Amino acid sequence: MKLIRWGQPGQEKTGVIINGVKLDTSAFGEDYNEQFFETGGLGRLSAFVAGNEGRLPAIDDGERLGSPIARPSKIICIGLNYADHARETNAPIPAEPVVFMKATSSLTGPFDNIVIPKNSVKTDWEVELAVVIAKKASYVEEADTAGFIAGYVLHNDVSEREFQLERNGTWDKGKGCDTFAPLGPFMATADEISDPDNLRLWLTVNGEKMQDGNTSNFIFNVPYLISYLSRFMTLLPGDVISTGTPAGVGLGFKPPVYLKAGDVVELGIDGLGTSRQEVVAYGS
Amino acid sequence: MKLIRWGQPGQEKTGVIINGVKLDTSAFGEDYNEQFFETGGLGRLSAFVAGNEGRLPAIDDGERLGSPIARPSKIICIGLNYADHARETNAPIPAEPVVFMKATSSLTGPFDNIVIPKNSVKTDWEVELAVVIAKKASYVEEADTAGFIAGYVLHNDVSEREFQLERNGTWDKGKGCDTFAPLGPFMATADEISDPDNLRLWLTVNGEKMQDGNTSNFIFNVPYLISYLSRFMTLLPGDVISTGTPAGVGLGFKPPVYLKAGDVVELGIDGLGTSRQEVVAYGS
Repeated sequence: MKLIRWGQPGQEKTGVIINGVKLDTSAFGEDYNEQFFETGGLGRLSAFVAGNEGRLPAIDDGERLGSPIARPSKIICIGLNYADHARETNAPIPAEPVVFMKATSSLTGPFDNIVIPKNSVKTDWEVELAVVIAKKASYVEEADTAGFIAGYVLHNDVSEREFQLERNGTWDKGKGCDTFAPLGPFMATADEISDPDNLRLWLTVNGEKMQDGNTSNFIFNVPYLISYLSRFMTLLPGDVISTGTPAGVGLGFKPPVYLKAGDVVELGIDGLGTSRQEVVAYGS
Repeated sequence: MKLIRWGQPGQEKTGVIINGVKLDTSAFGEDYNEQFFETGGLGRLSAFVAGNEGRLPAIDDGERLGSPIARPSKIICIGLNYADHARETNAPIPAEPVVFMKATSSLTGPFDNIVIPKNSVKTDWEVELAVVIAKKASYVEEADTAGFIAGYVLHNDVSEREFQLERNGTWDKGKGCDTFAPLGPFMATADEISDPDNLRLWLTVNGEKMQDGNTSNFIFNVPYLISYLSRFMTLLPGDVISTGTPAGVGLGFKPPVYLKAGDVVELGIDGLGTSRQEVVAYGS
């Protein structure tokens, strides 16, 4: 099943994609949020969709897509989780996962604009596979993590490198700016992705291929990450874990290349669709 | 006005403290959450309390207190914001604020237990003044920040130093463990604290004074912090900003001293009451 949310920002309705057609599930009456995932909402939604086969209204192609899940309690990100990306940023291969957090206020739709913050000159892109948590996870063993995954979603972990690396303190300052977490187009339920550790992912800027990797090159794979994170904090239903980016970010170029107003970023992952963001200046 | 939330974890009801008496405001019908702050809830609550003077039921003293505000979208913390604390941790005086985030799943009541995580040997204390945001704040000038403050609250920014400093990556790993954010006993509305930059704050462990500072020693004061953070992310109504801790944390002792099961931590700030946590081992 592929879950979507659509409509104006902050007023998104729910939907699903069936055989490539976007269908309105607002009549289901629940948002795709923490409570939905916590209380078996995916099962209820599946039954609702089956029970209304042929009767769900199609969603107009002109409708905006929002994040396919409601704002979660946490967006947890893994840094330097591909060896080639660690090398390009002159960082050592991590001995254990590098963890940071994105302010959830940065969440935005997969085709919304990326807004360059005021006084920013180093806004960068990062295509990532993100995992959505199905149920509370605390001290979960790696072998037991499968049941804790609700689904997978495409994420652009937009990053301001000066804020992140040159402005003192942790990375969080450069990761949580508004519009810095385009998520979607859809969340694919876990059954749709047979091997999350073998997915091609790519990103272009103005049509030029910048990133072209595969999650088979993860340093730490999805089960390991869920188990690892659950030792430091309780993962809640609907939480998002973004698993890191392969080589090819702007910071890695010599000299570095960053986004500017007018640029177009497109990205995709096998089985999780594609997204596209136009870059605009703050206040434009 | 002093806001409290009380009852079983996850099922807290609302209340206020008037002339030292805890009164049940469940009949008000709203939780103290993002929507409450965003839509002028403090004004509605004040009118409700005035309109029901003498008729609100008293809350039994045996009732548990929860966090005085519902789980926010973000708990943003400032590191090394007192020069004496920066010195004791061998960190340079920051040129601009050090920012990190606490997983909001760490939020807990002011008299709840602090649970030492599995495999933790360096769980530490940090008394802090926390600020609750009243309305959306993005690129706010320092001179305009007053209207963005809903109130103030006592916070113990519990920290696992090995997870924070020795386990690779940013500080977030050691800051967001469950029970690591005891908040309260109450949120005092902004009008009750005439000068947030001149409050004594202290913390004892087993009755021994460990921290005894004053917010007049802030490197970056509250208006500066709100303005600063609002350049990196939008602060949402109900968000918590914890302003850093003065000297006297366990990490600063030679050799360091950390919490162990059976320890009792008590802390307080002028005008914001006191809290008390017992330390327990995970699974006990």
